[in-house]
Amino acid sequence: MTRIPPRSGTAFELAKGASLTVIDPEGSQVSDLLAYNAQDVREVISNGRTFDYEETLHLSTGNRLWSNRSNPMLSIVEDTVRRHDFLLTPCSTATFEHFYPEKPVHRGCFGNLAEALEPYGIGPDDIPTAFNVFMNVPVDGESGLIAVKPPVSRAGDRIVLRAEMDLIIGLTACSAYDSNGGSFKPIDYELG
Amino acid sequence: MTRIPPRSGTAFELAKGASLTVIDPEGSQVSDLLAYNAQDVREVISNGRTFDYEETLHLSTGNRLWSNRSNPMLSIVEDTVRRHDFLLTPCSTATFEHFYPEKPVHRGCFGNLAEALEPYGIGPDDIPTAFNVFMNVPVDGESGLIAVKPPVSRAGDRIVLRAEMDLIIGLTACSAYDSNGGSFKPIDYELG
Repeated sequence: MTRIPPRSGTAFELAKGASLTVIDPEGSQVSDLLAYNAQDVREVISNGRTFDYEETLHLSTGNRLWSNRSNPMLSIVEDTVRRHDFLLTPCSTATFEHFYPEKPVHRGCFGNLAEALEPYGIGPDDIPTAFNVFMNVPVDGESGLIAVKPPVSRAGDRIVLRAEMDLIIGLTACSAYDSNGGSFKPIDYELG
Repeated sequence: MTRIPPRSGTAFELAKGASLTVIDPEGSQVSDLLAYNAQDVREVISNGRTFDYEETLHLSTGNRLWSNRSNPMLSIVEDTVRRHDFLLTPCSTATFEHFYPEKPVHRGCFGNLAEALEPYGIGPDDIPTAFNVFMNVPVDGESGLIAVKPPVSRAGDRIVLRAEMDLIIGLTACSAYDSNGGSFKPIDYELG
């Protein structure tokens, strides 16, 4: 088990067939997840292609996360939360300035992911909308309005994803106030 | 006024401050729209950043479409339809094979956009989720389920967007059966 400290991020390889378990050790903490084809990092996780093929915004056990080239990258094989987000982008200097103008600016998940992914030849412009594990973004179907609410995950909750190709994964303990109910906690992960 | 023939696409420059009017001349026809910073095409329209800052899935008059670098690219200044989609990716060879296995495969908006954008140094992997003008994708807020319904646009309906930076625009008359109520019609556009 590896711990990602609060407001930080990491990156690692995940071989085809291996599993990634993301655990919320204290509860109500978001983890932004990115995935790239390890053989060609221009192939990347895509919310739009995933919504195309899965036909739902609520991705959970049995759903797959797809790439911009229409290939499955990850399958969700276990999920004790069933509430994640794939609409919103990683928090960043710009989003801190926009949403929290009175608070200290943080580089956010975007800055943490950019630094962690740089050794793999992945730059800031290669960061798309992330799969935001445990992030709770209800949608009002009538008005279209979206809101960022505290995660419903409790201590020990987890999601398990299986790699459908050799991947580079980026993963964070999210840094934004609203996403995490106002506090910042670690995220644990395990490879299997 | 310029006409995009059924199941085709085009690309052009749009200077900061200029306006782009997209018109549905016959009704119930989708047009996929992409935007790139003309000075640096790695800056590109982003559904996630747009949902972040606009806080709604229903983008219409007064909303802005944002880039992956958190800059406004286009402002919607007029809209007679008020129903567009920013969740789904351009139809492609892969989506035709997936959704219409019994029908002839078409390269779709993705192939049309890739060809039209190639002279600007924009490749297929640089095509993100498009802003799908007139596309009707209701979301069930409870279940998360999404569906592709015929557009509600009628003959002569339009949307007007103002460029907030110098842009390269990609624009199509969409090629997919479900998006357009089962038929394929042209799209008109006008620069002002």
